[in-house]
Amino acid sequence: MTGTFYGLGVGPGDPELITLKAWRIISHAPVIAYPAANGNDSLARRIAAPFLPEDVIEVAIPVPMRREREPAQEAYDAAAQAIAEHLDQGRDVAFLCEGDPLFYGSFAYLLTRLAKDYVTQIVPGVTSITACAAAIGRPLAAHNDILKVLPGTLDASRLKQEITQSDAIAIMKVGQHFDKIRTVLNELGLGERAVIIEKATRDDEKITPLCDVPEGERPYFSTILIYKGGEAW
Amino acid sequence: MTGTFYGLGVGPGDPELITLKAWRIISHAPVIAYPAANGNDSLARRIAAPFLPEDVIEVAIPVPMRREREPAQEAYDAAAQAIAEHLDQGRDVAFLCEGDPLFYGSFAYLLTRLAKDYVTQIVPGVTSITACAAAIGRPLAAHNDILKVLPGTLDASRLKQEITQSDAIAIMKVGQHFDKIRTVLNELGLGERAVIIEKATRDDEKITPLCDVPEGERPYFSTILIYKGGEAW
Repeated sequence: MTGTFYGLGVGPGDPELITLKAWRIISHAPVIAYPAANGNDSLARRIAAPFLPEDVIEVAIPVPMRREREPAQEAYDAAAQAIAEHLDQGRDVAFLCEGDPLFYGSFAYLLTRLAKDYVTQIVPGVTSITACAAAIGRPLAAHNDILKVLPGTLDASRLKQEITQSDAIAIMKVGQHFDKIRTVLNELGLGERAVIIEKATRDDEKITPLCDVPEGERPYFSTILIYKGGEAW
Repeated sequence: MTGTFYGLGVGPGDPELITLKAWRIISHAPVIAYPAANGNDSLARRIAAPFLPEDVIEVAIPVPMRREREPAQEAYDAAAQAIAEHLDQGRDVAFLCEGDPLFYGSFAYLLTRLAKDYVTQIVPGVTSITACAAAIGRPLAAHNDILKVLPGTLDASRLKQEITQSDAIAIMKVGQHFDKIRTVLNELGLGERAVIIEKATRDDEKITPLCDVPEGERPYFSTILIYKGGEAW
């Protein structure tokens, strides 16, 4: 009997935002795997840390962060191989995913490689975008809203078009694109209707209205939520 | 001391997809409230049922389902009043929300009415769209995708435009709009790249590729996910 491959969403940061199902599976996992970008420690592992069995076997996956579409294929090939070896030995492997396994993130690359040959179970998790909405206490989307999740990598004209034709917007992967995004939002008159959330639900969560970000400062690793309705910030 | 008003996401249907945090709060809640559309029983309450204290006080909110933008203001006024009375007596009230409290749904209307006067805490939950993606084992969004969540209420030309200019699409509130949506997807050549998920993560979950839905049949209360990349259904 080969093991089961689990893709577990562990939520946005607060360990209490893990689901009962993911908690149950993590608590009994013989093997966990997780992405460790650029050799740094893993946020997904830190979130699950309070619930890991003492004798759990760990597979850290050193995913290089790259800008190209080509998503570090060799790293995922090697990771899939390492996971497959445990599955072949009959050990279940729980792959820990920040947020939700299928909402951006690297799990998709392992799913492609392993789901054909191994029993796979996916446990959805709380995403960063609804956690950000909760952090600022405003609806992400309501009623018949169009909601768009946009990557900060889009060029300015496309960003402008998509934001204009939408009721609710979350911009992810802000990073080095912050200046461009701020310019677009100010040009659209939405500078006072945007808020930047860093590390939502974590102890060091930080919430900043866009208009309060000093010129030159660029918040990295953050999500921007834009509200067209309701009160301005 | 007045009580705390909690907005708790209870996830898409499987009670095990409640977060540890929502579970903890529900387990000790003196009062729960929940929407009961058109006098029907409440999905949110059913999801939380295994964890409710025996002596919990219940406030069912009979939200009329209407198509107008005007979201049954009187019903929410009355609900806010009923909740406020408990809060004034020092009893915490946990409002149970299917999915996530701020991702569509009725919690926003109570937040507007109560957050100014009462301490409010929002606990994000697993949304139906990532649960649907998990049900079919395909990424909802990956890498630098644009993800759009579209209401089925949009007219055909707008639906067509938004779907064309997107990488990943979830269509919610399908209901009576199914025929229009199917026509649009077939015209765009995406009929074989769409799948309908009903009651994701529940015991009676149902997954149907769009092209397998018989002519004339209209799946209600469902979400449609569209995949432009990857293998067709």
